[in-house]
Amino acid sequence: MRRLSLLLDLYELTMAASFFEQKVRLQATFDLFVRTLPENRSFFVAAGLENALKFLEGFSFSPQDIDFLKQKGIFKDAFLDYLKTLRFTGSVHGLPEGTVFFPNEPLIRITAPIIEAQLVESCLLNTCNVATTLCSKASRVVVAAKGRGVYDFSLRRTQGADAAMAASRSSYIAGCCGTSNTLAGLTYGIPVAGTMAHSFVLSFKSELESFRAYASTFPDTTTLLVDTYDYYRGVANAITVAKELEVKGHALKAIRLDSGDLAAISKRARRVLNEAGLSHVKILASGNLDEFKIGKLIARGAKIDVFGVGTNMGVSSDAPYLDVIYKLSQISDTKGRVSPVMKLSKEKVTYPGIKQVFRVYTKKGLYQKDSIGLEGEKVEGKPLLEKVMERGKITIVYPSLEKIRSFAADNLKALPTKYKNLKGRIRYPVILSRSLQRMIVKVRKASSSKSAKV
Amino acid sequence: MRRLSLLLDLYELTMAASFFEQKVRLQATFDLFVRTLPENRSFFVAAGLENALKFLEGFSFSPQDIDFLKQKGIFKDAFLDYLKTLRFTGSVHGLPEGTVFFPNEPLIRITAPIIEAQLVESCLLNTCNVATTLCSKASRVVVAAKGRGVYDFSLRRTQGADAAMAASRSSYIAGCCGTSNTLAGLTYGIPVAGTMAHSFVLSFKSELESFRAYASTFPDTTTLLVDTYDYYRGVANAITVAKELEVKGHALKAIRLDSGDLAAISKRARRVLNEAGLSHVKILASGNLDEFKIGKLIARGAKIDVFGVGTNMGVSSDAPYLDVIYKLSQISDTKGRVSPVMKLSKEKVTYPGIKQVFRVYTKKGLYQKDSIGLEGEKVEGKPLLEKVMERGKITIVYPSLEKIRSFAADNLKALPTKYKNLKGRIRYPVILSRSLQRMIVKVRKASSSKSAKV
Repeated sequence: MRRLSLLLDLYELTMAASFFEQKVRLQATFDLFVRTLPENRSFFVAAGLENALKFLEGFSFSPQDIDFLKQKGIFKDAFLDYLKTLRFTGSVHGLPEGTVFFPNEPLIRITAPIIEAQLVESCLLNTCNVATTLCSKASRVVVAAKGRGVYDFSLRRTQGADAAMAASRSSYIAGCCGTSNTLAGLTYGIPVAGTMAHSFVLSFKSELESFRAYASTFPDTTTLLVDTYDYYRGVANAITVAKELEVKGHALKAIRLDSGDLAAISKRARRVLNEAGLSHVKILASGNLDEFKIGKLIARGAKIDVFGVGTNMGVSSDAPYLDVIYKLSQISDTKGRVSPVMKLSKEKVTYPGIKQVFRVYTKKGLYQKDSIGLEGEKVEGKPLLEKVMERGKITIVYPSLEKIRSFAADNLKALPTKYKNLKGRIRYPVILSRSLQRMIVKVRKASSSKSAKV
Repeated sequence: MRRLSLLLDLYELTMAASFFEQKVRLQATFDLFVRTLPENRSFFVAAGLENALKFLEGFSFSPQDIDFLKQKGIFKDAFLDYLKTLRFTGSVHGLPEGTVFFPNEPLIRITAPIIEAQLVESCLLNTCNVATTLCSKASRVVVAAKGRGVYDFSLRRTQGADAAMAASRSSYIAGCCGTSNTLAGLTYGIPVAGTMAHSFVLSFKSELESFRAYASTFPDTTTLLVDTYDYYRGVANAITVAKELEVKGHALKAIRLDSGDLAAISKRARRVLNEAGLSHVKILASGNLDEFKIGKLIARGAKIDVFGVGTNMGVSSDAPYLDVIYKLSQISDTKGRVSPVMKLSKEKVTYPGIKQVFRVYTKKGLYQKDSIGLEGEKVEGKPLLEKVMERGKITIVYPSLEKIRSFAADNLKALPTKYKNLKGRIRYPVILSRSLQRMIVKVRKASSSKSAKV
């Protein structure tokens, strides 16, 4: 893993320097959560915790980092010396990756000395934002595909290498079958799939020659791209090659449609393939797909077995970020005095205290409602936030990606159908527990009297 | 730099394996270009070339990569042996970073043995897409700010660490004054700036106490965030601290507004500050800004000196990717026979041949029109694509980031005002040269007869 400790907003360091110099030695609790749902969304799927924990466990500044900060000329030596040996020593609770969650529910809760909790803010937000944004989007694509296979083809247009890796991992968690990103195959063990590009077809004297060349190298795993010149000639050439493969004891795996009216073309291609006795040859469709287009294709009876989904899923194009924030909720001083805190500015209220999310299920095991309450409070429902780090060390055996994927599938299954809408936003009931409500009233009062004193 | 050679779509490797086995030893030319303009955009600003060239120069597969591919069980040993020592040996032409460009104009042109040219496709597209997407977006924000300072505050919600780095670098090229991303300061030498967060204010007994603490640590570089409790009390507290700093021979740098009606609040804050004799204290505004909001704020006479722009710029939220593609335009075989090629499927036509972009200027030095022609063709205008790599080695002394930034500023200045619209899409004239038009007709004819033969 790369050294990302300096991937932080400078103000995290200037605030830390001020805390350090003013001898502010508070323990602080921060919640990382998403404030609002994007348009057309009713839920999120949590992802990014594993990378976040690795980042926290490895957090430290290198001599090069310290030298750079020294050159800035704004930090005093005592503070820079302090940074040299600083590690993250806090405890962390998190929603397991693959958990379906809703606005204002903490995705991660951190309790640590305030300087440490503050310094890790930017990178934590960055890590969880991209992973959760892409996982939430991919879950919609998988839902829309209604059991048909979905592959992540987004690498080329994701926002950088990390985003490409996050897209592959998050979409796999969300239920995709695999990715075109070979490095994600190596790094995460995700199934990797590939077909061919138009340039391959164009590099041969004819389409048929290009198909034969590819099939001869991969006699059992060939998917032929049939739209470079003309669809129906393309399908005819694919059939020719499929027959030649049959004679040699092999089988064409699939054809790929990448442009045009995919519903109409897939139906005609299916018929032609079936008439040629090639009902086993699958049809893969790609080309600017997303959950909306997939929904329409299926509604039109498209004969598509597998969808290759690229850019729109890999950048979550209709909601390319989540309104994810990291907010102070409680401080305690060295004398053990505890103060729950909240931001009061009109548009951006936050909730105080050390919180837990409780989920109530119906008898059939479906989600019924959630409560945000205080940790330790007696609230109906299953607590969702789990302890994952203590004193800066990961305290759980991190689940395998397969386990996370299957956990996400269970979560999506337990989410009532109405929330899996492709259009519109349906509000899942998330209520505040009594103790949290009382705490909010108390903090409001205290802070208005505090402000009045100023 | 990380090893990203395996950050490729698997089909690049399967096609390569087929080319290898079929002994296809063509030289290929590929163009990397953007097909269409996003909504409300009339131009792009090129970025990402430096990273692309570094990637190409360092391209090679590690023993771990080869082992992974071997495990896949679909590649033959001869091909894997070939990959072990494979390097990129091609030549590259590129638009210098900071160049304003338009749809269908090659951003990068590569000529290389076809296997190499194909294997580098995914990562090249990924690198250029994110850098150019974010640079093009940031240039709009800078244009909207009409000379006021713009800082990149996007780190926390960019799509991963690479995207954060690209956002800082691209927005600086586009004319931003700096970034909050400290690692971008270290890596690229970009000025780094920071203020304070609400959590800092909340960590003290009162807002005033928090302001005093920060100002005491940074007496000459303090920007106070004044909206945690109440704006006007916040400004009053900032004035108190500014006066205390004055007594000690220091000066408050700025206040920051982060919520509410920024136009109204900034005007009132400006008046109150001026009345207190603090006309030197700047007003920085942030909070979900983009070029549209900045345009409106300025139109309403907001008294804002500096804008901190985050998410919307850092993910290019209204156009989070460009329609960037990498298309084969010419092949030549070992006997030196040259075949220009183009894709003919209806919606996605490409242009054949080894192309150059020629730009014609008005007498006043403004852009008048561009022509896409053939390299070496006599076409009016200045050729924009420069040779940057030969036989796999970078052939230019890469310009400093400051030079690129100043080159981008010159480019944006030379772009007539009407194309710098915030809304609507105005088509800049890009025409095809006579030779290119003739070539297109010829290739169409040849390929329809070729298809007919199939």
